[in-house]
Amino acid sequence: MKVNGTHYRSLWWDDDKKALQIIDQRWLPHEFRIQQVDTLQDFADAIVEMRVRGAPLIGATAAYGMALAAKIDPSDQHLDETWEFLDKTRPTAINLRWALTRCRTRLKSLPEAERAKAALKLAHEMSDEDVEICRNIGLNGLEIIRKIAATKKPGEPVRILTHCNAGWIATVDWGTATSPMYHAHDAGIPIHVWVDETRPRNQGALTSWELGSHGIPHTYITDNAGGHLMQHGQVDLVIVGTDRTTRRGDVCNKIGTYLKALAAQANNVPFYVALPSPTIDWAVDDGVAEIPIEERDGREVTHIQGRNEDGKIVQVQVTPDGTPGGNMAFDVTPNHLVTGLITERGVCEASREGLAGLFPDLAEVAKSA
Amino acid sequence: MKVNGTHYRSLWWDDDKKALQIIDQRWLPHEFRIQQVDTLQDFADAIVEMRVRGAPLIGATAAYGMALAAKIDPSDQHLDETWEFLDKTRPTAINLRWALTRCRTRLKSLPEAERAKAALKLAHEMSDEDVEICRNIGLNGLEIIRKIAATKKPGEPVRILTHCNAGWIATVDWGTATSPMYHAHDAGIPIHVWVDETRPRNQGALTSWELGSHGIPHTYITDNAGGHLMQHGQVDLVIVGTDRTTRRGDVCNKIGTYLKALAAQANNVPFYVALPSPTIDWAVDDGVAEIPIEERDGREVTHIQGRNEDGKIVQVQVTPDGTPGGNMAFDVTPNHLVTGLITERGVCEASREGLAGLFPDLAEVAKSA
Repeated sequence: MKVNGTHYRSLWWDDDKKALQIIDQRWLPHEFRIQQVDTLQDFADAIVEMRVRGAPLIGATAAYGMALAAKIDPSDQHLDETWEFLDKTRPTAINLRWALTRCRTRLKSLPEAERAKAALKLAHEMSDEDVEICRNIGLNGLEIIRKIAATKKPGEPVRILTHCNAGWIATVDWGTATSPMYHAHDAGIPIHVWVDETRPRNQGALTSWELGSHGIPHTYITDNAGGHLMQHGQVDLVIVGTDRTTRRGDVCNKIGTYLKALAAQANNVPFYVALPSPTIDWAVDDGVAEIPIEERDGREVTHIQGRNEDGKIVQVQVTPDGTPGGNMAFDVTPNHLVTGLITERGVCEASREGLAGLFPDLAEVAKSA
Repeated sequence: MKVNGTHYRSLWWDDDKKALQIIDQRWLPHEFRIQQVDTLQDFADAIVEMRVRGAPLIGATAAYGMALAAKIDPSDQHLDETWEFLDKTRPTAINLRWALTRCRTRLKSLPEAERAKAALKLAHEMSDEDVEICRNIGLNGLEIIRKIAATKKPGEPVRILTHCNAGWIATVDWGTATSPMYHAHDAGIPIHVWVDETRPRNQGALTSWELGSHGIPHTYITDNAGGHLMQHGQVDLVIVGTDRTTRRGDVCNKIGTYLKALAAQANNVPFYVALPSPTIDWAVDDGVAEIPIEERDGREVTHIQGRNEDGKIVQVQVTPDGTPGGNMAFDVTPNHLVTGLITERGVCEASREGLAGLFPDLAEVAKSA
């Protein structure tokens, strides 16, 4: 999408420098910094430190990491080592492992001499695929928004609540949860987005930055506010992304998503999850019991980053000295709280039948694996 | 309770200076600053700017404001003007109006010449009453904690989640939601408190400061985390305070309380509200429909205060320039989500019958009003 009028993807290959370029998202929304990723350690750091973030973008980044690995040493052993090395950078998102495995499997099927070139080509393909997937998620989600808009008075916006940043900078382009919003706005449907702050890392500020850059009206609210807004009829639908969705439709996403799903159900607000199919974990059924939840540094909770009066980006401590911070990064929303899953192939029920109906090919492969 | 080993109330009368002293809570948890309140404008500022906060403490502060008014000019007209002036400082908490009305009614019943002295005496009495009310809330809540502790292995803590700061600094002493915690800890029952951060003003940092000062183990978590913790059996009970509870037991409290109540119900976690009887609004039935919800400055959401690396208390901007912040300060939890109300007279069901059963005198007065 656009930044100050120029179209960007969230990562791209620079043919002159022969290296991957990323947006270092730690400085957003205050500074737009581009960074080159040169070494395998750079790749790991970029993922661990959340310079890149969001399940689809992590997957795309990992594919370029495998391409670098194949260039350095295309042996099976080195590909295996890199797989292990990058796989452990984030434990919750499924796209990371999906991308690593896809690359490794493909490369191992080729003679070593061909692997470096093929790996880079594959990474490019996977990036382009992600863009196309997200575009289609947007078109499918657009139909849901269009139906709600039809019930409104002329000019009255469809009010959408979202949590975290499942935006274009969490994917290669378009985003997942935001793609229907961009499509609706571009189609002339008035929308207003309630942007959950999303503590502890305030990814809502990223979503605000994206929406503001695109001219979409929005309000930044605390994570506490959504229940009240739904109770008072101020939310027409919720759309969130996901880091991993189980084959029965349990949705693992940024911590706090579950609370919004409970509020949506209690107030009859449709709760949709936008997901690219690589986010589906066909090997897992019960998300609450089976998905490992990443626990991150407590300092992310006790300290907050922002821009001070001098325009410098600094961290401030909110808690008293010595107070421990608990930092569970994700939670799981059980499928019965989910109205529907918006995928690149269409919208389905959050259930085994729903997902297998849209993706019989993937469900079948998983079954026989 | 104690600060660095010395016992403090959150406000007190200084006989030498003949003036009210408060803890200016805007600097907590980083700095412990005491401030003298000299003029009626000072009183209004102290409440509006949340130097004093928490429904019971606002009520006690207002009583001293009326005492100052009676000293300046004890006429009926001036008492009425001061009532109006202070009543509009915060719209949601009921204790403010309750305290102002109680003072005005009492003072108007006296000859003007006696009002100044009587007003100060009444403010002192109301402070002492608040302490006694909170102490009894603690004793009643202690029994709930004791019962859960009896189901635990020796040494295993009772895990309590709380939202906002309904602590001793939100009252004159003991607190409401925290009073059972202090009593349990002092009785040798091991407890661990999950402290909700409580955006936008991070009152969880105040609760952490209180609990840490008293030696009670606790963890500061984001407002997003409670649902996940309950889903995984990590919370034995929730205790929160309230700014206003309707006669049928709907609970108005800090924004986000409702989301925790939904999660508690979904996961069979007992959800208790600790309240002094002045917090009950006998004139209101349906809290969601009838209680006005204060909307505060959006800057409280887009900016966060904390201590920087140089030890200075500063504000940082989290959002991009131009992003509007929405700041609804309270929400209402319907009575059916509340397991019980912990009052100074005992624990009751959150219902008309429950409250009228414990407070037949107050319910009766309200009916005839």
